[in-house]
Amino acid sequence: MSSSPSLTELINALKCLPGVGQKSAQRMALYLIERDQVGARRIANATITALEKVKHCKQCRNFSDTVLCEICGNQKRDAASLCIVESPADVLAIEASGAFQGLYFVLLGRLSPLDGIGPDQLGLDILEDHLSQGQVREIILATSATVEGDITAQVVADIARKFTLSISRLARGIPLGGELEYVDSGTLSRALSGRQKYD
Amino acid sequence: MSSSPSLTELINALKCLPGVGQKSAQRMALYLIERDQVGARRIANATITALEKVKHCKQCRNFSDTVLCEICGNQKRDAASLCIVESPADVLAIEASGAFQGLYFVLLGRLSPLDGIGPDQLGLDILEDHLSQGQVREIILATSATVEGDITAQVVADIARKFTLSISRLARGIPLGGELEYVDSGTLSRALSGRQKYD
Repeated sequence: MSSSPSLTELINALKCLPGVGQKSAQRMALYLIERDQVGARRIANATITALEKVKHCKQCRNFSDTVLCEICGNQKRDAASLCIVESPADVLAIEASGAFQGLYFVLLGRLSPLDGIGPDQLGLDILEDHLSQGQVREIILATSATVEGDITAQVVADIARKFTLSISRLARGIPLGGELEYVDSGTLSRALSGRQKYD
Repeated sequence: MSSSPSLTELINALKCLPGVGQKSAQRMALYLIERDQVGARRIANATITALEKVKHCKQCRNFSDTVLCEICGNQKRDAASLCIVESPADVLAIEASGAFQGLYFVLLGRLSPLDGIGPDQLGLDILEDHLSQGQVREIILATSATVEGDITAQVVADIARKFTLSISRLARGIPLGGELEYVDSGTLSRALSGRQKYD
């Protein structure tokens, strides 16, 4: 039994968050009410604003507050290089690495016939339209290193081949800091077959 | 660089939650926007409602939407038994056990001179006032099993002794399912010295 119905509702609402169960939700709700009411209000406002404002960029399909997202609209980025990713989370990960200065195209999924995701759901018509404008010189296929990711990359490459483009795929091999002993055998065999010249 | 400022603000806002860093906040924000907008709205509304409505119960100091909280106001609860706890989280834990049908008094802290928490901050005047009304016959000291918790229990007991009350403290010993091998030595020595008659 709870002493406050609105606290109970806050706890239940927080359980909507991924990876948050009863105990964590309790801890979060009590923390917000007891110690960080400013933060609580910030979360509420940010959620409402995001729900209202966040749409998809018409060029790259990533989340955006405006018709063209901040990355696509940034003149300093290299429009000749286009990185194809599955999800907005992948864009965040690549941006965090700081290793890419080009633009993105977000498929918002990967080919998965069982889940009803075919080429139509991946916005490949938008991609083809963008490529046909002739700005893009290089395509980097950055879909997951899984069977579905590979097939998706294949389908995107088929479209890209209609244009004069350099096409590449993210390198596979031992992750940085990876100790051979703990690397799985699939990764290891891939790293062997794809061994790189050592100068 | 982010494609959407309002998504970035949502990620930063979610970092206010305890135990949530950049990666978890990203995951939560993208999940809410991509897959559970209903849940997102529910969180926003529940937070705003809780911030507006949640106050402290005038009798037990626990969180409450009304002057008297739902537990204190419940006629089915046993007003003769009063459990003294440090925080609203402790009430939730005891309620989840289902082992207690009485009322609570929440100290909202524990004696800790270094943090500036003295007897005045713990609402002991409200407690004394409540006890003087003569309804309470039994006090259960359920403060933490720490040095501060013990001292706090001591201070509360001093007040309770002014009235004709039975006073007890939560039992200490091996936790349920605890294997002796892994129980810390402090708990073990306490369980030995406080061994219970076996019938």
